[in-house]
Parts: sequence; C-alpha cells; structure tokens
Amino acid sequence: MPGHRVLIVGGGFGGLYAAKTLDGDGRFDVTIVDRHNYHLFQPLLYQVATGALAPGEIAQPLRSILRKYRNQTVLLGEAVGLDPEKRRVLMSDGGPIEYDSLVVATGARHSYFGNDEWARFAPGLKSIDDATLIRRRILIAFEAAEREHAPELRREWMTFVVVGGGPTGVELAGSLGEIAHDTLRRDFRSIHPPDARIILVEALDRVLPPYPEGRSKSARRQLERLGVVVRTGTRVVGIDEHGVDVETADGRERIGAKTVLWAAGVQASSFARKVAEATGAETDKAGRVKVEPGLTIPGHPEIFVVGDAAIQPGGPNGGPVPGVAQGAIQPGRYVARVLKGRLEGRRLGPFRYRNLGDVAVIGRLSGVTNIPWLGPFGRAGGFLAWALWLGIHIVYLIGFANRILVITRWAWSFLTHGRGSRLITGQPLVPDIEEPEPPA
Amino acid sequence: MPGHRVLIVGGGFGGLYAAKTLDGDGRFDVTIVDRHNYHLFQPLLYQVATGALAPGEIAQPLRSILRKYRNQTVLLGEAVGLDPEKRRVLMSDGGPIEYDSLVVATGARHSYFGNDEWARFAPGLKSIDDATLIRRRILIAFEAAEREHAPELRREWMTFVVVGGGPTGVELAGSLGEIAHDTLRRDFRSIHPPDARIILVEALDRVLPPYPEGRSKSARRQLERLGVVVRTGTRVVGIDEHGVDVETADGRERIGAKTVLWAAGVQASSFARKVAEATGAETDKAGRVKVEPGLTIPGHPEIFVVGDAAIQPGGPNGGPVPGVAQGAIQPGRYVARVLKGRLEGRRLGPFRYRNLGDVAVIGRLSGVTNIPWLGPFGRAGGFLAWALWLGIHIVYLIGFANRILVITRWAWSFLTHGRGSRLITGQPLVPDIEEPEPPA
Repeated sequence: MPGHRVLIVGGGFGGLYAAKTLDGDGRFDVTIVDRHNYHLFQPLLYQVATGALAPGEIAQPLRSILRKYRNQTVLLGEAVGLDPEKRRVLMSDGGPIEYDSLVVATGARHSYFGNDEWARFAPGLKSIDDATLIRRRILIAFEAAEREHAPELRREWMTFVVVGGGPTGVELAGSLGEIAHDTLRRDFRSIHPPDARIILVEALDRVLPPYPEGRSKSARRQLERLGVVVRTGTRVVGIDEHGVDVETADGRERIGAKTVLWAAGVQASSFARKVAEATGAETDKAGRVKVEPGLTIPGHPEIFVVGDAAIQPGGPNGGPVPGVAQGAIQPGRYVARVLKGRLEGRRLGPFRYRNLGDVAVIGRLSGVTNIPWLGPFGRAGGFLAWALWLGIHIVYLIGFANRILVITRWAWSFLTHGRGSRLITGQPLVPDIEEPEPPA
Repeated sequence: MPGHRVLIVGGGFGGLYAAKTLDGDGRFDVTIVDRHNYHLFQPLLYQVATGALAPGEIAQPLRSILRKYRNQTVLLGEAVGLDPEKRRVLMSDGGPIEYDSLVVATGARHSYFGNDEWARFAPGLKSIDDATLIRRRILIAFEAAEREHAPELRREWMTFVVVGGGPTGVELAGSLGEIAHDTLRRDFRSIHPPDARIILVEALDRVLPPYPEGRSKSARRQLERLGVVVRTGTRVVGIDEHGVDVETADGRERIGAKTVLWAAGVQASSFARKVAEATGAETDKAGRVKVEPGLTIPGHPEIFVVGDAAIQPGGPNGGPVPGVAQGAIQPGRYVARVLKGRLEGRRLGPFRYRNLGDVAVIGRLSGVTNIPWLGPFGRAGGFLAWALWLGIHIVYLIGFANRILVITRWAWSFLTHGRGSRLITGQPLVPDIEEPEPPA
C-alpha cells in the first residue's frame, strides 16, 4: 500500500525538521523539494559574509542528511504554483507533484520596502550567494581603498553602512569591526584598516529591539568598543552607488559609503504568496500567510505553512512566533507530529512556541543573551554570552564533519585573530560595483 | 634610498615563490599584482571540482601570505599591457606601475585548439570559478537524471566525458568514478549512480603521456577498476549540448553526454602574448614566450617570464621545463636569487630544472608515481603512490590552517566515503545547461 504522500517545499529549518521528525516512518511517502541541493544553517550566514567560515561549512546536501530515510525523496527544483483542488504543486520545469499533505516552508527573502532599486547598492543576506557577494564587496572595498589616491573616494571605500539593527545587522557590524581592527590590521600598505568607519543605522531608538532594553544597551556598548558607530533613530531614505541618505530628528544627512549592507526587512517567499492566492488565505504586508493555531490554512487542513513564510500564532505573550531558527524548527517538528497523529486518529493541541531564548555575538569574546527561562543567568553579556552562543550553534549545526571543521576554524581564528575564508570569487575582478542579481 | 623595484605579475606558483624568496630583503621594493586576491594551489583544483575540498581550503589570500614582508605590496588588478621602454605595466584600471625588474608569471588558460565554441559545453579547469562550475555541472547531472523519465535523456545525464588523458584528466575521471560508485551510491531513489558511464578520451595511444609506459598502463588499470572507460587513440572532433563526436582508427562515432569536461589543452595567458608583442620576443603556437637560459627575454635582461607563460629551457634531457607546479616554483625561486645576485655583482648560471618527479592519484588509496631519483621505489603504484601524493600535497599547501582543514577533511572522507563539499552554488537552479563565461 502506498504511503500517505507528504510534500515538503523548502529545505530550511522548517522543512528539514519536519522531514527529520517524519523520519523513516514507512506509513509516509515523503518528497522534499528545494531550489538548492543543500540545507543552509542561516544563523551563521553572516560569518560567511565576513570571511570567518566557508560556505560549505554551514551547509549540507539535503540528500546526505536524509539519505537514511528510505521513504524520503529529495528533488532539486522550484515550486511555482499550487492547485489545491487537485492537490498538486506545479514546478518550474518537469511535471507537477501530487500530495496528500503539503508543508510550505519556503522562508523569506529581503524586502526593500518598495525601493527595489536599492538592491543593487545594498545587498541583503539570505543565501550562500548573497553571503559570497557581500564578502566580495567588503574585501574589494579594502583592496580599492589601497589603490585609491583621492582622499574623498578612499574615504567612501573605507566606510561601511549596515542598515538595520536587528540580530543580523548587529552581528554583521560587529564582524566588520573585528575585520577592520583585527583581521586586516597589518595587511595593507597605503591604508590603515582600523581607520574604516562602520556605521550601523537603525530607525528605532535602540538596537536588538526584541531584546529587553538593558540587553540593547549592552549590545550598543560592545559594538562601540569595536569601533562601530551606532546611529539609532535614523531612517534610510535613499541609497545609491556613493552612499546613503538618512533622516533623523535633526533633518536629512548624507553618508558617503561604497559598501552598504541591508539587514532591515524581510518578506515571505513568492511561493507563499502563490499558496495564499490559490487557497484564498490572508497574508500580511510582508506576504506571510496567516495560519490557524494548528499551522494549517483555513479550510485546508492538509496544507501547513511554517517558519518565515507564515504568521504563526502561539508565540510569546499571545503574539506571533518570532522569525528565528527555533520559530521554524519547532513548527516543523509539530507538523510532523500532527501528521503522525492523524494516521493514528489522535488530534494534537494547537502549536505552542517554547522560547528557548536568543543569543547574539558581537565580535570576539562578547555578545548578549536573552534567555528568560534561565532567570538572571539568562541575561549574560560579554564572554558568557559568547560561550553560550558557541555551544548552541555547534549543537544545531547539521553534519558531524561540519561541526569539526567549524570548531577547528573558530579555534584557529581565535588563536591567530585571522579569518580563514577570504577569497574573492566570481568574475576576474577589478574593484568596481557590479550589479547583483535582483532579489528573486 | 628607495629599493630596486620588482614588479611581479601573477600570484601563482611562479610569482609567489619569487616573492617569498625575495622575502623581507629591504634592498627591494616588491609589488605583486594579481586578478584574484588569493594564491591558488592548482594541483588540488580537481578536488574542488569533484566536491572533495572547498575552494577556501586550497587558496589563501596573497596579502596574508606576504604580510610579514614589509617591503612587499599586494595589489588586486589586471595587467593589460607593457611599455618596455618606460619600464611600466599598464593596468585595466588605475595608473601604470613602474618597475626596475619585471617578473611575468601569469600562467596559462585552457585552449580549445581553435574551437572556442566548445567552451560552453566543455568547461576547463584552471580557476576556482571553473572548479565550482564543474562541481555544479556534475552534481546537477545526477539531480537531473533523478528527475528525468525518458531513458535516452537519462542516459545522457548519466554519461560523463573527460577530454584529455593528462594528469588533470586522469584525476578528474578517477574522482568521477569514485563519486558514482561510492559517494553518491545510496543518495538517489530513481537512479543508481554506479550505472553512470565515465569515459576518458585521449588522442594519443596512452594516458599520462609524460610518464613511462609502464606507469601509463598501471594508471589505465586503476581507472578501469573505478569503472572508467578509457578510450585512447580517440580524437574529439565536435562537442555540443548533447554529447561528443569522436574519431578513431575505425571512423567517427557519437557519445551522448550532458557533461563534458575539458582537460586537453592550454595556452599562455593573454598578458604573456602582450609582453611578447611589446618586446618582440618569440612565442610558440600556445602563445608561450621563448626565454633565454636565464629566463629573461632576449635583449631585456630586466624582464623575466616564468612558469606556464614561458617555454623555459633547462628541463629534463635538454628539453623545456614541464608545465607542472615545480616548473614554476623552481623558476620563481631562481629569479629571486638572480635579482639578489645582481645587486651584489654576482652572476648566476642558467636555470636548471630539478626533476622531483610526478605523482597522480586515481581515486581512493591508489595512484601512480614517476620519481626518477628514487630509482625503482620511484615507480610506485597503488597505495604507496597515494600516500606519497598525500604527503607532498600537504607539505606544499600554503597556510597552516588549510593544512589542518584539508587533513581533517581527507581523514573524514576516507572514513565515511563521503565528500564534504557538494554545494551547488550560483543561480537558483533548475537542471539545465547554462552558458558559462567564455574563457577570458
């Protein structure tokens, strides 16, 4: 007898943990589809963007992760449409894929709040290719400054603006501070990398808005110690090839900078929108699908949407589940348990998010945490936060070889103050801004 | 007093070893220019192309390698012309760079013997970007075969042709054999990877033509043990999207294959041609500059050409120096010693190549060697060759962290029969042949 056909679209945290929780259970016939052949450990993506880790160290082929489950098939392909009546997903090439239950876990991409023309000047950080592009931009900026004799242009090359003071922005800015003050310190002859200006711009009045206020202050102090200029209450109103226009309470201002990184906004993937259109589900402004307490689409108990593609109820204080790794891992596992329960005639209660807490690192040996269930210990700063972060990330990183490699690299970087992965790949190059792909 | 200005164009083996041998000697003012920001360990490039190593593990930023020499400057840029009268090199952007002595070490790129239209169907292996493109092609071929239902097309996706039976071709074909029979063995559901056909095509009557005949036979046997079909005496006369046309003593034949890899011919870099034009130096058909026994251009004792960009006299049996790593490392060191000698009024004798021997690995635990100075021990095959190869490559790999990482990865792959670096990067993808950049 053929098993219950589960189609999982997306191999990020939500999709992967759904598949892993369905495991080798022979009652299911699982297909997982992704546009990439790998699962990406997104929380460490900024480390690839800043040259601390190599792409392969935070990604693992989906095929090898799921190889042991003989009832699971991994397909490389792009889902482009949904026919909820016939229960099938349309692919960009090849025939449609039929399902009995569908798990939409396609995540988010960055959003420029209607200013898509900013994308070419201010790349965001969502994929491996984004990360290598950003790494390329950062490294080329220092190379170009070394060759540039005009002081004004050199200053533009030596200025880095990070837009958005959430965890990604804070971690990127902190890493940039470390690169300028530590890693590249002695690598150049005409420029002095510690002279680089790193500016973190945030529209709200503090960084890390989801953290308690004390933690935000601590993060700010730690960033400033790394030489990062933190500008809160500052809104970006324009970005071009030579810099950023910002608006503060005091009026408009221009920051000349060749390198601008976008860590400000996200929106749901385009497949999530198509799912909403096909099923009549509601979405919010960012295109995220509103799901019921069981994470299904109203009127379609066979369609689940999890992670960044959805607004998931069951979060802290009655709000939605936050857009962090655990906000996809836990729903992914929940969906698999619901599917197993259904086959056995059991009904699970609504999804409840367990807040395991947040940790962000800020450069070498420091960071902030916000882990409510640890009480006062959960508000560590500095070294303790950093150590905690290290442990958590190693545990969740998929693939034993990756864990070994990442530990080796971190230990090595720690001892030598180096960064192991500083290749500029892509076209043979001459310092210049090239056009990135528009956000897909 | 400003030092003697040495300009080194190219950060491969020749350029890097020239710079390292000039070291921190304050009498020199050294500038090294490369289009990439890293030195690439080319002998392991095929391991990146076949997913065994990650790009960052065989490359190291030139800046960090040369950081300790305070008299040396690394510049990212592309040399596009030479003015030998004014003693300066023109750059694709930015002002020209003046020199007192010039070292041209720009290496080679692949040559399609006048059939440049083959480049899109049969990528060659010279750069990191070539290697990730080839990796992408190989992995996508298996993914596409998994999704393809038409037997004829599936067979095309499952057929891999390597053109050229030199060391690169042999190592690529051997690795492909290992991927199909070992690494991916259990990763797919609709296809059986060991069914893949891997065909090595060589126009001459044996593989590894520079090795003694017995070694060629041994290599062939080892390849066949890995399931590779070795077709010697077979000339490629056409390549298109669906396969290769070959010519043998028996006539023409068609091999249907979606993945064709080019390991057949090289030509000198375009900068080498420009140097020849500007100085009136002779070149051979492959564009390599004929240099004098002191590795300088006739009439220009201040211009050295080393490595694959030159035909260097002083090789084995009165012939030219072979196009291997040592054929650039030794000339690079020699040039640095000549330059030091000149400042001290010493003249060095002509360049003499020391044949340290050759080693090629063929899959797991086997390989062939040809090391004349070791006598009969120098003709090892199988495991001994493999162990020797391992040792040599680890010793020459630049960067201690890289050595640790590569050893870790090899040990891990060895134990698990896995390959750690199997990401398909680049465009979000759907199996299809996309156009690579034409060879630059």
